[in-house]
Formats: sequence, C-alpha cells, structure tokens
Amino acid sequence: MTKLIPAIVIGRLPIYLRELVRLSKENTRPNTSSQELAHRLGISSAQIRKDLSHFGEFGKQGTGYNIAYLIEQLQRILHLTEQWEVILVGAGYLGHALAHYGGFQRRGFRITHVFDTDPALIGTEMGEIVVQKIEGIEAAIQENGIKIAILAVPRSVAQKMTDRLIKAGILSILTYTPIQLKVPDHVQISYSDPLVQLQQMTYYLPRDAD
Amino acid sequence: MTKLIPAIVIGRLPIYLRELVRLSKENTRPNTSSQELAHRLGISSAQIRKDLSHFGEFGKQGTGYNIAYLIEQLQRILHLTEQWEVILVGAGYLGHALAHYGGFQRRGFRITHVFDTDPALIGTEMGEIVVQKIEGIEAAIQENGIKIAILAVPRSVAQKMTDRLIKAGILSILTYTPIQLKVPDHVQISYSDPLVQLQQMTYYLPRDAD
Repeated sequence: MTKLIPAIVIGRLPIYLRELVRLSKENTRPNTSSQELAHRLGISSAQIRKDLSHFGEFGKQGTGYNIAYLIEQLQRILHLTEQWEVILVGAGYLGHALAHYGGFQRRGFRITHVFDTDPALIGTEMGEIVVQKIEGIEAAIQENGIKIAILAVPRSVAQKMTDRLIKAGILSILTYTPIQLKVPDHVQISYSDPLVQLQQMTYYLPRDAD
Repeated sequence: MTKLIPAIVIGRLPIYLRELVRLSKENTRPNTSSQELAHRLGISSAQIRKDLSHFGEFGKQGTGYNIAYLIEQLQRILHLTEQWEVILVGAGYLGHALAHYGGFQRRGFRITHVFDTDPALIGTEMGEIVVQKIEGIEAAIQENGIKIAILAVPRSVAQKMTDRLIKAGILSILTYTPIQLKVPDHVQISYSDPLVQLQQMTYYLPRDAD
C-alpha cells in the first residue's frame, strides 16, 4: 500500500513540520498557504505543494492549509504521534549539548539513557539522566524496545559501537562521528559533520585569487 | 567560465574528500576506483563517476583514480587549499564541543575567535581560545577578513545575531539553532538540527500499530 516516496521529499517534511509548529504559535489565523511557507522557508511553493501531494490532499484552493490539521498529518506520516525513546552513547561535551538541548521532548523524542566508557563520567548526571556503564547498553535497548540511538563517540570506536547497537535492536542511528559507518540495509543512518557542512559552503566563497 | 553545478553534487564532494583522505592513510596503494569508493560510501559508482566528471577527467579506465591527485583536486575545487578562519558564536556545551573537535584544522578550518554574551563565560578558555565579549565581533570579522561563522546560540537571538554577522562581512553560516534564518542571496547557510535528522528516520521505523 505504501508508495515509494523519494528520500529527499521525506527529508523536507520535518522542516515543514517545524515551521508549521512555529506558525501555530505566532498566529491567530488558523490557516497558512504554500506561498507563506515558501516565503518563510526559502523553498518554492510549487515544491511544497508537490511534496505534500505525495501524501494526500491537505489544502484547499483559496483557503490554503489548516495549520493544526497539517501538523497532525505530518506527525502521523513521520510516525511522531507517540514519543520515541532514544539512547545516547557518549557523555562528552557533545553528549552534554545534546542532553541539555530542550527540543527533543517537544518534537517527539526523549533521551532516556546515556552511556559512556569513561569511569570518571559514569554515575554523573546529565540533565535528569545518570550516565551508565556501557556494559548495560544491550539490556537497556532490549528491555525498553529502543529503536533509536545517537552516537557521540570517538571515531576509533564508532564502527564497533554501531555493530553492537544494531545487534541489540537499534534501527535508526544519528552519528556525530566523522566517518562513514557500515550498516545493514534495514538500518537508517544519518550523519552530522560540521566540516562536511562547512566544506559544502566554501565552494561558493570567493578566494583571494579570484 | 564556471558551469552551474547542482548543489547536491557539491554536497557530496566533501564526503568523497573525507573518504579519500581516510583511504590515503590506510593504503599503501596509490590508486582507488569508483567501485572501491562506492563500496565504502554506499553511493553508486556511476553516481561518483558522474559527480566527478562535472569537474574534469580525474581517473583512467583500468587504473582508476590516483588518491593523492584526486584529494588535491577536490581541495582545489572546494577552495580548501588555504585554511579558512572561522568565528564561533556561543560558548555553551555545543560551543565547547565544537571548539574541542579535533577535525577542523586537518580539514581546512581554524576557529580563531569565540564570542558570547554571558559575563560568566567571557575570559574563560575553550581549548586555546579565550571567549570574548560579543561587542567585539564586528571588529574581529572585519580586521581579519573572516567569511565563515558558526552559530551556537539560543533561538531567541539567532536572527538578530545572523543579521549582525552578515552586516560585518560573513558570507557562510553554519547554524545549530533550530529555526529557519533569513539571509540575503549572497550568503550561504547550512543547518544542523538533530531533531530534523531523527524525524527523517522515524518515517522508516515500524510503529507498534504496523
């Protein structure tokens, strides 16, 4: 029954959702339009309409989209109607930044476990979570049916840890380690590397020689 | 003289570069192939050959790509032959994680200035850099000709800070604040939002109801 939707379309839905939630807080009006979203997001209104049309008819000619309804539908499409538990591996500076980032709960996720290998960190608190010994990670994943992990570990251990997470049942991994990880086809992986992002922009920068 | 290359192609070049550098460290062989890169990156070899062909002929049928030469060419294409100075705005946990991240220098960038508004943070050290008062940010950008900024600030101040950076001469911004920022056409912006990345993956996760 599911049509195959291009990954690039799926990739834009969270951005639409984030902006709609923002709109719903600012607005007294119940509706928005693909033009208004386009203006706010720097994506063309035709693209927005086409992306959404993969999933049904959400708007009406003339009145546009009902914001609350579209938020609900995007949450349903993205499987965000219930909260997902997330484990975090790595309690360094980056782990701290993630654990203290307020947006998770509001946007469908809750970091429920943090693991590290460093004896100096184990037992310390990050926000409301106590850092646990890495040895317990498989049990935590399996007992709680956790499917999502965030990896904030040194690259020397990243592949080994990835293999361990997947073997224990993790299906989605967000990694901050700047190496390409090998995962089986049934596992989703998403990379966050500030250097890749910076290098994608320097292409467009004038050099002194130009 | 410059052809218009799709942004998605430019976006993959830093990933090729990162893997080639890794290969050059592992390998005693001087050459690689689009097949080897494809296997390591999970991108098809046809895609890799097509992406690179936008910029010239880098490989030879039969012998493949010379790794050192291709690294050099990608660095040239991405304007990474000299090191770029970067200013970091925000000295919280995320700012610390970025300032302590070892990869910058090796990959063409150096964080030379860190700014914050919190009096408790000003004067403290992050790695080898002293956190400075935000008031000095325009002078630092202009006196050093800095073109690149990383924004790790609360979202309530993100747009105002962005406007200030651009007015002072910044052309590329990597932002960790989870809102869409308005920038003029001549400025590049790149977003890093863990929630968007997680939400892009939950689409593919089975729900309990499935």
